[in-house]
Amino acid sequence: MAKRTMNLVGHMCIGPTMHHAGSWRHPESDSENSLDPARYERLARIYEAGLFDALFLVDYLGITDWQQNARSGVLERGGQMTMLDPLQMLAVMARVTKHVGLAATFSTTYNHAYQIARQFSTLDHISNGRAGWNIVTSGQVVEARNLGLERPLDPVRRYDQADEVMAACNALWDSWDADAVVADKQRGLFVDPDKVHHVDYAGAMVKTQGAPTSPRSPQGRPVFMQAGASDRGRDFAARWAEIIFANRYDKAGMKAFHDDIKGRMADIGRSPEACAVLPAIAVIVADTEAEAQARAEYVDSFTTPEMGLGMVEVSVGRSLKGFPLDTPIADLPVGPSGPPARGVYDNMLAMRKDGRGLTLAEVAVRKATTWGLPRFVGTPASVVDQMQELFDERCCDGFIVAQPLSPGDLILFVEKIVPELQRRGLYRTAYTGRTFRENLKSALGGA
Amino acid sequence: MAKRTMNLVGHMCIGPTMHHAGSWRHPESDSENSLDPARYERLARIYEAGLFDALFLVDYLGITDWQQNARSGVLERGGQMTMLDPLQMLAVMARVTKHVGLAATFSTTYNHAYQIARQFSTLDHISNGRAGWNIVTSGQVVEARNLGLERPLDPVRRYDQADEVMAACNALWDSWDADAVVADKQRGLFVDPDKVHHVDYAGAMVKTQGAPTSPRSPQGRPVFMQAGASDRGRDFAARWAEIIFANRYDKAGMKAFHDDIKGRMADIGRSPEACAVLPAIAVIVADTEAEAQARAEYVDSFTTPEMGLGMVEVSVGRSLKGFPLDTPIADLPVGPSGPPARGVYDNMLAMRKDGRGLTLAEVAVRKATTWGLPRFVGTPASVVDQMQELFDERCCDGFIVAQPLSPGDLILFVEKIVPELQRRGLYRTAYTGRTFRENLKSALGGA
Repeated sequence: MAKRTMNLVGHMCIGPTMHHAGSWRHPESDSENSLDPARYERLARIYEAGLFDALFLVDYLGITDWQQNARSGVLERGGQMTMLDPLQMLAVMARVTKHVGLAATFSTTYNHAYQIARQFSTLDHISNGRAGWNIVTSGQVVEARNLGLERPLDPVRRYDQADEVMAACNALWDSWDADAVVADKQRGLFVDPDKVHHVDYAGAMVKTQGAPTSPRSPQGRPVFMQAGASDRGRDFAARWAEIIFANRYDKAGMKAFHDDIKGRMADIGRSPEACAVLPAIAVIVADTEAEAQARAEYVDSFTTPEMGLGMVEVSVGRSLKGFPLDTPIADLPVGPSGPPARGVYDNMLAMRKDGRGLTLAEVAVRKATTWGLPRFVGTPASVVDQMQELFDERCCDGFIVAQPLSPGDLILFVEKIVPELQRRGLYRTAYTGRTFRENLKSALGGA
Repeated sequence: MAKRTMNLVGHMCIGPTMHHAGSWRHPESDSENSLDPARYERLARIYEAGLFDALFLVDYLGITDWQQNARSGVLERGGQMTMLDPLQMLAVMARVTKHVGLAATFSTTYNHAYQIARQFSTLDHISNGRAGWNIVTSGQVVEARNLGLERPLDPVRRYDQADEVMAACNALWDSWDADAVVADKQRGLFVDPDKVHHVDYAGAMVKTQGAPTSPRSPQGRPVFMQAGASDRGRDFAARWAEIIFANRYDKAGMKAFHDDIKGRMADIGRSPEACAVLPAIAVIVADTEAEAQARAEYVDSFTTPEMGLGMVEVSVGRSLKGFPLDTPIADLPVGPSGPPARGVYDNMLAMRKDGRGLTLAEVAVRKATTWGLPRFVGTPASVVDQMQELFDERCCDGFIVAQPLSPGDLILFVEKIVPELQRRGLYRTAYTGRTFRENLKSALGGA
């Protein structure tokens, strides 16, 4: 069994703000190219130079605070927007890279299983085995309204449907045997039709009957990512996920989440190596502590508290208009159906300053600058110390890495953090697998 | 007003057979690379070298004869399959070209308007103004079953829904003003929120309320293509289309169809220059007639009658098992809801040999080798004579061009037909527009 090493997955979105809401204003930010595919090709090459398992694109089917405010603060202030379809951009990125995995967020609620299966089979073919799917059930009101509903389906119903979508997609992906395409010009046999199997899936909500047009792709199916934090969401993740994106603010939270997930996996007979639990972190690194702090302060200087208010509203699931900025976060009401994403909400309650919980203004600022993630600022040694502690103590299997400043902080991560991880034997020194899944499993020690 | 010149659009699909069912077996066919994006990048570059307005990807959400035969003849014999998602492949092709339009077939029945609007906005951004949408309502049983229905919705219902989808998509595409994105780092203003307008579309079948994530794209909306042949389909096309893909087998049929469409456009106040009517043709060209005939015979030699039976079954909308191969085509029964695509069916009835209609076997062979399209085989002069006659007599505004052998017949078209068209002043000598739509309109004489 190979030595366990860290999995790293890059956190991106198609928009001005990758996760730090003011950073697009930084003079060195590449935000003016938010709609230019060349920006994403460049970033993909940098992730690959850093030997990342994969990069993944966050996605929402709407502008996240549109419902609260027609003069949207997210639009005006350049908050986290996911402007374009992620799959087309990943297909573009696939053509300028060879190894890095390419994962897209895609909704089980607003796409039919047949379309999902076909889209990810296509990406896996185009990328030659590097597709990943961040499975979401789309809980936001803006998404529901854009897609023609008054409000989102309730979370349990969404996950029940997602389970059916997974079963249907797997049936579709498994319907073509790996050797079905013969392409024998002499015999005139293109596909051996005995190796394409009729699919007949009929769940309560999802049905598909027939056969997909896409031959089995190099990986067979995309690598499954998931970020569920509710009880139902964790069960779903423990059942299906190969990477879990953990939104946990501190070490205790990461450890508890990691152990909970691995326990749920054991309960249903999955090996702990079958899934990498990856908390998201943001990293700002430089050669000296002072330099790193100065970098952090400079990028934060472009942020105002107002930039984070919309994010807090999303987290509680309602408008906060009229609440004073100094209201303790624990005293704020939540929406009628509870916080849309439980884990994100719990993180806000857990945030501390001088031993007390934070105010609305403080949470808004932290949200805006860190998107609620832990942020490691320091030298390569001090940042890697913190990463290593979490990894060695099995709070995680690696990290989702967010870059406050794009592309500067990503470039510094690749130039300074990656070599330090390698020196300590914590990270691969070359890609060894042929696919995203093979690279992922090899780091987990399971291959 | 500029001189009227021909519009040319390339006819492709992602699979072994572009339209000639035996051609994939030709030693020079690139069919072994059917799943390789490099094949499509290469073809896109060739279309651009030939100054084509656009290429477009045929697409079906299923294997076309799956319902009739689990041992699918289409699979086994390498018939027209549309294996992968067209939009991702077009995004890839966009990155290796600068001028050629990139159009995908996409269903109004099996995709929500919000997803359609976003996908085509994305392609238009990635291609810098070259997206086109071939609007289909997906009438096949295999498509319905893959997507979870027992059978397709009836055609009128599908077109009614398509009209609503168009209205919803247009509202979404028009919601961002062209100058909404400010991206002013100094002022901290990313989008002027007054320039993003709330969408509230509520049809009987399609609803969307909110705002899209994608800023207005270079063209604003994709170029609309359509191929409806039924009365309801023609009304739809006359209302929306900027390019009509006409499946007409002979000159009289082309003329009647062209005049009918332009008449319907006039009835609703659209100028005839607002839409190019393009019949599909296949071309095999060589320096001598004998050489061209030999090319045609050689590529046809890979075709058996069985290769076309599935296509005839699709055209009549039912299984033909048990019918002798010498049954006159007019004596064959059609499916319970009629032929799924009226124009395709009418073409079969119109085919003649020695003054009589064709048999099932003859139609099957012709379908397999020509996909039911007129085929021009000859020297550059003789082929262009036929094209020019149709164009000058206003049977059409140009052509959808299918290549029997990929890539050989496409390369010969670009090397031999294009210069002959240019010599006669029938075709552009350079791209003059910045977008697909600008190039299209300029040839139509409207710009």
